[in-house]
Amino acid sequence: MGVVDVARDRSASLVHVGVVRSSPDLPIERRLHAIAEGIRAVLDEHRPDVVAVERVFAQNNRHSVMGTAQASGIALLVAAERGLPAHTHTPSEVKAAISGYGAADKRQVQTMVARVLRLDALPQPADAADALALALCHAWRGGGAAPAAGGGALTPAQRAWADAERGARR
Amino acid sequence: MGVVDVARDRSASLVHVGVVRSSPDLPIERRLHAIAEGIRAVLDEHRPDVVAVERVFAQNNRHSVMGTAQASGIALLVAAERGLPAHTHTPSEVKAAISGYGAADKRQVQTMVARVLRLDALPQPADAADALALALCHAWRGGGAAPAAGGGALTPAQRAWADAERGARR
Repeated sequence: MGVVDVARDRSASLVHVGVVRSSPDLPIERRLHAIAEGIRAVLDEHRPDVVAVERVFAQNNRHSVMGTAQASGIALLVAAERGLPAHTHTPSEVKAAISGYGAADKRQVQTMVARVLRLDALPQPADAADALALALCHAWRGGGAAPAAGGGALTPAQRAWADAERGARR
Repeated sequence: MGVVDVARDRSASLVHVGVVRSSPDLPIERRLHAIAEGIRAVLDEHRPDVVAVERVFAQNNRHSVMGTAQASGIALLVAAERGLPAHTHTPSEVKAAISGYGAADKRQVQTMVARVLRLDALPQPADAADALALALCHAWRGGGAAPAAGGGALTPAQRAWADAERGARR
């Protein structure tokens, strides 16, 4: 999971990065419970305005896709439990947002995340960099296709994006 | 969702059947939250010993599979929250258990569920019959591949199955 703070000028800083792990020895329902608890702990500590989750496609990597879909469902559920709007972005959208290139490789994503957040080292593991890239993508895109629940309640990132768009049109 | 009570002789009776619905107008995170709340309400009212969930495969019906995977993840999570063991069964396993035929159609499943539970009418919609068939499948199979969490703590259905197996070996 990655938590970032995005300013009105779209500059961003790192708030939290980590990987929620669950023991592969546990039965699936206990693993999903551990994931839910891990996400809840991060949301309760950092109180983000909005949650972004990777959009999973059935055609990608069939062996892992069902577990990924279940975990993404858990993340969406936990966001709703906390009253937070949630949005999904595809891996291509995330890569394009962070690197300008929808087919960027993991190293390119790590490198760009480190540059944007002014980190001294590449975020490790690559999944953690992906989470930060997803958070940045969401903030910069201003919520993607779906507006934040509640309509008028723009997040700071959405306001920054809207401001930037207005600026660009002048 | 279907809740059944299975006796030691493997006869079964209907406890509850229903469909947890969520408005398609809601954003996905709110829909998953509504599903979680619906499942929690049934578990809290009927306090089952074990939860069975359909095992979803990526190769089935790509358009709906991700939503189904997310909902199944929610069901597994909610079971774990309540301290219940959960197990998954494939649609073929369920059909074979209820009808003796792994490729049974929806009408055959509805008919057999109605017969087993001595219902006056076919369970409607077909999804509700599928849920009851899944519950019966789990009870009769005695937990499928994975034993109940905790090992020694057999559910009544698992005891019934174990007894029946012992009986058959004599």
